[in-house]
Amino acid sequence: MKRYIFLISVPILLIAGVALRPVPAQTALEDLRVDPERIERRIHELSEFGRNPDGSNGRVAFSDADVQGREYIMSLMRQAGLAVRVDAAGNIIGRREGLDPEGPSIMFGSHIDAVPHGGNYDGDLGVLAAIECAQVLHENGVTTRHPLEVIVFIDEEGGLTGSRAVIGTLTPDALEVVTHSGKTIGEGIRFLGGDPDRLDEARRREGELKAFLELHIEQGGSLESQGIQIGVVEGIVGIEHWKVTIDGMANHAGTTPMDQRHDALLAAARLVIAVNEVVTGRPGRHVGTVGQIRAEPGAPNVIPGRVAMTIELRDLSAETIFSLAADIREEGERIAGESATQISFSHLEGGAVPAPTDPRIRGVIAKAAERLGLSYQHMPSGAGHDAQDMARIAPTGMIFVPSVGGISHSPNEYTRPEDMANGANVLLQTILALDREAEN
Amino acid sequence: MKRYIFLISVPILLIAGVALRPVPAQTALEDLRVDPERIERRIHELSEFGRNPDGSNGRVAFSDADVQGREYIMSLMRQAGLAVRVDAAGNIIGRREGLDPEGPSIMFGSHIDAVPHGGNYDGDLGVLAAIECAQVLHENGVTTRHPLEVIVFIDEEGGLTGSRAVIGTLTPDALEVVTHSGKTIGEGIRFLGGDPDRLDEARRREGELKAFLELHIEQGGSLESQGIQIGVVEGIVGIEHWKVTIDGMANHAGTTPMDQRHDALLAAARLVIAVNEVVTGRPGRHVGTVGQIRAEPGAPNVIPGRVAMTIELRDLSAETIFSLAADIREEGERIAGESATQISFSHLEGGAVPAPTDPRIRGVIAKAAERLGLSYQHMPSGAGHDAQDMARIAPTGMIFVPSVGGISHSPNEYTRPEDMANGANVLLQTILALDREAEN
Repeated sequence: MKRYIFLISVPILLIAGVALRPVPAQTALEDLRVDPERIERRIHELSEFGRNPDGSNGRVAFSDADVQGREYIMSLMRQAGLAVRVDAAGNIIGRREGLDPEGPSIMFGSHIDAVPHGGNYDGDLGVLAAIECAQVLHENGVTTRHPLEVIVFIDEEGGLTGSRAVIGTLTPDALEVVTHSGKTIGEGIRFLGGDPDRLDEARRREGELKAFLELHIEQGGSLESQGIQIGVVEGIVGIEHWKVTIDGMANHAGTTPMDQRHDALLAAARLVIAVNEVVTGRPGRHVGTVGQIRAEPGAPNVIPGRVAMTIELRDLSAETIFSLAADIREEGERIAGESATQISFSHLEGGAVPAPTDPRIRGVIAKAAERLGLSYQHMPSGAGHDAQDMARIAPTGMIFVPSVGGISHSPNEYTRPEDMANGANVLLQTILALDREAEN
Repeated sequence: MKRYIFLISVPILLIAGVALRPVPAQTALEDLRVDPERIERRIHELSEFGRNPDGSNGRVAFSDADVQGREYIMSLMRQAGLAVRVDAAGNIIGRREGLDPEGPSIMFGSHIDAVPHGGNYDGDLGVLAAIECAQVLHENGVTTRHPLEVIVFIDEEGGLTGSRAVIGTLTPDALEVVTHSGKTIGEGIRFLGGDPDRLDEARRREGELKAFLELHIEQGGSLESQGIQIGVVEGIVGIEHWKVTIDGMANHAGTTPMDQRHDALLAAARLVIAVNEVVTGRPGRHVGTVGQIRAEPGAPNVIPGRVAMTIELRDLSAETIFSLAADIREEGERIAGESATQISFSHLEGGAVPAPTDPRIRGVIAKAAERLGLSYQHMPSGAGHDAQDMARIAPTGMIFVPSVGGISHSPNEYTRPEDMANGANVLLQTILALDREAEN
């Protein structure tokens, strides 16, 4: 097996066991660029696997379309000179050896599974840009010091399943969860060529990775509305959920005078507004949402006796989340007292702790954007990503590019080709900068 | 066939073809009283037909339990000396001839079908009290001038089906409606011994009835909370429904900043409160209810993009209903403007126009209560009743008795035996007063 090293602007290194051959057209590493058209073409090609009649992306994890999409991705990885394997969790890993094959890898990637009726950029861009980076290095005969690993995590949309396996937090219980494919996660892993009984083999330990990087669409409208090209992600916000139950008294909507009602929905409406007021009443980028509401018995001619609703709070600071929750509970108590209802809050399992990215890597990403002449801003990620798991075992960085109209999880999700290329170039230059970093 | 006439305090009348026999223990008509224990016992006996394991009443229209309950009721009618028939709509009619068999009848009754998981007083009391009145007259050998007809309407809870047939507004389309029994109304009528092809035979025309009377539990808490024994119903309120759709934009609850949201549920919550404020902000006994709400897509981590909800308004004045609706629409426009959502109101078919009772009969009921030493108040009926249909073809009166805690359509529905007896005595004395009225 031959390895080609091509490093300009540094003295040619002679390393034992590595054959060295100069390449005719020499490009400085900082001048390496991705191919925008290739990324865009592959976004369209990948979107064919699982496309619904309405144009949306139906490539949910563990579906036949997922398998087909993964085969397509593995073929691209091989074109990019990567050595492809599927780990015990079903994650695809394409590896490119470095000058120091025993050294820690730089890993980067994302996912290709979608929510039902999703779009074609969420996850897909991160995977295709990662392969593009590998391919650019391959085509230019560049060998990095560190091994590079392109990873495609399984079932991101089902709860970061692939990255949980990599960091060792995918529990046996989680394997029993039924997914949109109809299969349990355990069955799905087997379906993709993994082995749920040997998940430990998929695990990576602290120190094995020099860095983890993920490029992703913003899924919000901040970058686009401000005309900023690159988001340097400060961290993935923590998420906490509460189930709130409002108990009043169901009664006949015709015979119960207004002043004798214990209308659970009227109290719930006040609480929905209070959640918004508490959240917007404090400066910061935290968000709070009531996404689900159910009134019982739910007939037009019966005063609702019980309402159940959810409250979700997200912020980079767990302290802020729980302080907002305390304020909302206080409002709930006031509303319950005024409306002669009972309001109970139940904190739900399955939240996520805030996952800050690595400050040093944020600096490298920012510098890469700057050198590429791209505008950037530091910002939180309001959505969850595999990067938040990876941050627990490796210094992690995340790069955002604009989502048109902030639309995501929808067939209308769109990121312009130039923005995809910008993000991929920042990823490429960040990889190269991190790779060289140790030499300084 | 013999008929016994017993009229004290008026000269004995000799009428051709009627054998006359004085009865030993003579009671003045105004001293006639129902038997409280018999009513209460029969309430319990009737409740056995269709009782659910949880104690609630499952005797929905057209069920086997409905048939059994009706057989029990017909046996009571026969004990009370009534001539029993089932009309083409399946309504049970027990007739007692008057001195003038060709004259208009005084009709009174209610229904014995229940909502699923209902109580044992709604309807049942009105039927058993009506039979009790007939039985008291029978036992005391009283023959009235007017024929008396005790009626048990079918499927009141399904939309006043029996009384609609009697007034001729039960349409062929309505016969296709599937009921809680699993049968269509047409099939149900046949199941009860009626003939949906000959509904016209069940019809009664204006002038055929001297009066229609219905005794019913209040189903609200006004009488009980004020300690008043009898409600003289001024009319059955009109009911109008609207479906309201609030369109915002569904989006990711994590990535969409608070100031970029078009949260349909937040706007809906404001509208729920506005409905309450408009309704309670104007003096009167009108009521307004939001009983049904649905947020889409309805996930904890997605900002609701669309909310659908119902608004129901009830009042004795249609003008008030539509004026409240206009105020609510205005509030809706304001909220839509402020929240960058669209709010559309759609008026639904199937409402009910207000049905005032007959002022003269209200006076007779009030006087009967007064003579019985019972406290009373004039009040609207917030619930629908067969009386509202009957008011379109006959002078109609309605008597309410207290519901403990205002609870109805629930196994916890309860009316005290003394209140049942009070109501039945008012019904009896109202019948007798109306019967004598023409003589004045």
